[in-house]
Amino acid sequence: MPKQVDHRERREVIARALWRVVEQRGVTQLTMRVVAQEAGMSLGQLQHYFASRTAMLSFAMDFASEQTSVRVHQGLERLGDCPHPRDVLRLMLAEMLPLHADARATSRMSAAYVLEALHDRAVHEQARRGLTQGRSLVEELVRQAIADGHIGPGHDPATETNLLLALTGFTPLIELDVIEPQDALAAIDAHLDRLFSRM
Amino acid sequence: MPKQVDHRERREVIARALWRVVEQRGVTQLTMRVVAQEAGMSLGQLQHYFASRTAMLSFAMDFASEQTSVRVHQGLERLGDCPHPRDVLRLMLAEMLPLHADARATSRMSAAYVLEALHDRAVHEQARRGLTQGRSLVEELVRQAIADGHIGPGHDPATETNLLLALTGFTPLIELDVIEPQDALAAIDAHLDRLFSRM
Repeated sequence: MPKQVDHRERREVIARALWRVVEQRGVTQLTMRVVAQEAGMSLGQLQHYFASRTAMLSFAMDFASEQTSVRVHQGLERLGDCPHPRDVLRLMLAEMLPLHADARATSRMSAAYVLEALHDRAVHEQARRGLTQGRSLVEELVRQAIADGHIGPGHDPATETNLLLALTGFTPLIELDVIEPQDALAAIDAHLDRLFSRM
Repeated sequence: MPKQVDHRERREVIARALWRVVEQRGVTQLTMRVVAQEAGMSLGQLQHYFASRTAMLSFAMDFASEQTSVRVHQGLERLGDCPHPRDVLRLMLAEMLPLHADARATSRMSAAYVLEALHDRAVHEQARRGLTQGRSLVEELVRQAIADGHIGPGHDPATETNLLLALTGFTPLIELDVIEPQDALAAIDAHLDRLFSRM
């Protein structure tokens, strides 16, 4: 196996170990030593792949975003050719909620990452860039849906995009058992129904 | 001054010191030693008021909720007698966003608290109870607005309440400079306009 591929694979193994630590034990337990143990390697071996906790966490966040994209794309394939934009947005929003182990680990990492970002300029910039790209993708979808007549012409694409992204606010409410997952999904459906019915 | 009052006042001084640490330095810096320093007392004195970091954080969270209520009530007084339910909801939602120092400290503490709650049953229960009470308050408002004809009868109060609470999802997007505060407020206004216009 080429060395470059092996390096990438080992980093992914470490990222998945990090996800498990965050999901099962919490971000306060997230040290390089604990992740090394979870990944079945020594601290020295881990440090060969990541120079710092922040570097490891950054990679794990990027890898989580990639894996989320993969899951969304797999979902899109199941929707067939030319899926309705409402179904695409529904899929993206549902995948952002902590409804299965990988999504839960990702959303818990994101929450921890946001807190680190508030007092670390580099982390802030990485998080801002990632979220801004995600936001642009959603806005593009909304603009196209308006152009295609799926969403009424009276809607402001930027405002509708912002409202859709804000619905990730269901995450802590689900995590703390304030709102049941099916009720969050029902609310998202009600919001999308309204958005797509106002011709 | 009665001893009981003094005790309460000292705890509030400590809670405000804790808020400043969370807002300015981040929750990772939140130790009893750092808070004692910020409050201008010794660690021993602080421990006289709080037996543990969690006890201190719990009190600071409860005190933050109280202070948020005070700010909302002050806002309601400015709205005069019988304020429109749309204005009441607007006030509550705006106060939950990190738009000034106290609200920012509160929302940063909440975020840290949610992360602690995922792996601490007592914290989970306290956070769940507080949020569930807040949710009930909003649902009561929505039900009354439907009964009074301000919101159309076709709306499900539970679903509309859940959507309103989810809009706290603007918090990380504002903190990371992905969405400007005024754009978040414009989106909240658009959502409320729609909710209150569908007779």
